[in-house]
Amino acid sequence: MRSPSNGAAIEHLWAVVPAGGAGTRLWPLSRSTSPKFLHDLTGSGRTLLQETRDRLAPLVADRIVIVTGRAHRDAVLAQLPDLAPDAVVVEPSARDSMAAIGLAAALLERRDPDAVLGSFAADHVIADPGAFAEAVRVAVGAAEDGWLVTIGIEPTAPSPAFGYIRLGSPLATDPGIRVASSFVEKPTAEVAADYLATGEYRWNAGMFVARPDVLLDLLAETDPDFAAALRGIAEDPATLESVWPTLPRIALDHAVAEPAAAAGRVAVVPAAFGWDDVGDFASLATRFDGDDRPVRVLGDEALVLAREATGIVVPDSGRVVAVVGLDDVVIVDTPDALLVTTRDRAQEVKAIVAALGEMGRDDLT
Amino acid sequence: MRSPSNGAAIEHLWAVVPAGGAGTRLWPLSRSTSPKFLHDLTGSGRTLLQETRDRLAPLVADRIVIVTGRAHRDAVLAQLPDLAPDAVVVEPSARDSMAAIGLAAALLERRDPDAVLGSFAADHVIADPGAFAEAVRVAVGAAEDGWLVTIGIEPTAPSPAFGYIRLGSPLATDPGIRVASSFVEKPTAEVAADYLATGEYRWNAGMFVARPDVLLDLLAETDPDFAAALRGIAEDPATLESVWPTLPRIALDHAVAEPAAAAGRVAVVPAAFGWDDVGDFASLATRFDGDDRPVRVLGDEALVLAREATGIVVPDSGRVVAVVGLDDVVIVDTPDALLVTTRDRAQEVKAIVAALGEMGRDDLT
Repeated sequence: MRSPSNGAAIEHLWAVVPAGGAGTRLWPLSRSTSPKFLHDLTGSGRTLLQETRDRLAPLVADRIVIVTGRAHRDAVLAQLPDLAPDAVVVEPSARDSMAAIGLAAALLERRDPDAVLGSFAADHVIADPGAFAEAVRVAVGAAEDGWLVTIGIEPTAPSPAFGYIRLGSPLATDPGIRVASSFVEKPTAEVAADYLATGEYRWNAGMFVARPDVLLDLLAETDPDFAAALRGIAEDPATLESVWPTLPRIALDHAVAEPAAAAGRVAVVPAAFGWDDVGDFASLATRFDGDDRPVRVLGDEALVLAREATGIVVPDSGRVVAVVGLDDVVIVDTPDALLVTTRDRAQEVKAIVAALGEMGRDDLT
Repeated sequence: MRSPSNGAAIEHLWAVVPAGGAGTRLWPLSRSTSPKFLHDLTGSGRTLLQETRDRLAPLVADRIVIVTGRAHRDAVLAQLPDLAPDAVVVEPSARDSMAAIGLAAALLERRDPDAVLGSFAADHVIADPGAFAEAVRVAVGAAEDGWLVTIGIEPTAPSPAFGYIRLGSPLATDPGIRVASSFVEKPTAEVAADYLATGEYRWNAGMFVARPDVLLDLLAETDPDFAAALRGIAEDPATLESVWPTLPRIALDHAVAEPAAAAGRVAVVPAAFGWDDVGDFASLATRFDGDDRPVRVLGDEALVLAREATGIVVPDSGRVVAVVGLDDVVIVDTPDALLVTTRDRAQEVKAIVAALGEMGRDDLT
């Protein structure tokens, strides 16, 4: 096991960043033409993609691969201008995370025989990058030993919005790491509360660390054609366009992580670093909960006039937004669409996006 | 007393339409640069000014004088393209209704010795123009007999938003007309309820009908200099710019109607024709109360997507407005400013306009 000193990049660690998903629950800020990861959702002045890169750079230097759709390639390169153009792998179409991360694994398997791959979404937020880095360092050690490693986030609330990982026995080589007993789908709020009470469950943040060969060999055990197709594309990239549409649409969790956990081959690094997937505006608003201002502004505060109101305002069109006498309101003002709702109802924005699609307003979805 | 047949214009009746006031309680739709009267607030496709003209045209033909600020002259002529340019009298500055209507009276006194002047605001709505016309016909008859006549609107609710007129004894010549006992300022809701219960009070809609000489002579009794100044401007319009700034800022109600009522010289024509001054968004929403759609749209309905919401949406920017899970909400979306509030709080919009002024955002007020 390699133990790099804290603060240095981790040799042979490659960050794979799947940058996809429309994030329709954050409509109208996020939409298929301009997904969540391209937006500053924390008020930091950096987009989620840029923050992801900032967080990974100390760990991997320039060993980063961003897997994104053709429509977003230019936006990704524009937001990360120091990125080498070949650091962006373009998916011909969206085929879920197994294909996206598996392709990156197949490419890295050929490129660096000692590679360890860590996949981290482009659109999550992490409050404590130092603690994140430490968890990744621990995970890389276990990955080099042949484990499929996931980072399990300590739950801070009984959230029904996330999947969970049940912790199993400690690893003999490192009792701080646990075998993953199982992955469980998003539970009800009651079940989530039970999970929280046991202390034996962690949030599944979709962070996987493994050697590319370990990941692809695990895939080959459940779907040998899929693994062979990915390795075939890596061998002859000219086949990408023709082979890609034949690949299964499946999440890495289902294709690899769940069966591997059932076989006792997944390790969990438990960690706590203020993680959130910013799934909707309610989640976004929660990020400001320490803020004692009644109306939280994501953007230019000078544009928002509030009077006896609470909630969150995103003034993204440059217009003045005045809000009077409403509680827990969510106002998202973009140049071509406006959303007014409440924190409680924020999840229902998906229905609005669906309705717009039915109306033929694809320009807005 | 002249009794024109119903449907014909009333000879020598001149409509004077003061078109002023920012209507800041209807911000951001209405503002000092684009006041209420220039907007379609009923969804009719006509602005309040155009509707006012439409309503008056059958009564006065082209005998109409619109008194407005310099900033709005072009907009008025653009909205009423068939108006003769000299039908618009430009006030050098806003000096309240006595100066505005008094100037028109002085001009008409010289222009038509048999003139009867009827003053009607440019930014009110009237549901039944036929009943309005009938009330005006009755008022003109009394005005020709020398009365200062006002049209007293039958209250439909104990509104604290309007001034009231207390009815006195019937006129000997026409028992349907009453002497005005007094004008009373906007009451509390409790007092308004008492007024409603007596049946002896009418809303003061600021509609006055009188011979120009009667109006100016009444003014001369309380402020002879003021009346002389107005007549002086009419005699030599070149003096308008120099004299105007010296005129008192006072409403016609205070300058003439209240003292004249105290002297028993004001007649009231009681009437009911669905009048409203569209004072704020709550009042605007009330106009849709017969409409059983949960969200009422003032503008293009195709722009509004509502889900489990009630209230009023004004999509005035062309942008899609989505509203989810809010009751009695008021959303006014204009190209440079957005208001989100509730019917109950709609009056507080004035405070937002004041705050914008303090911030130096006069472009938005």
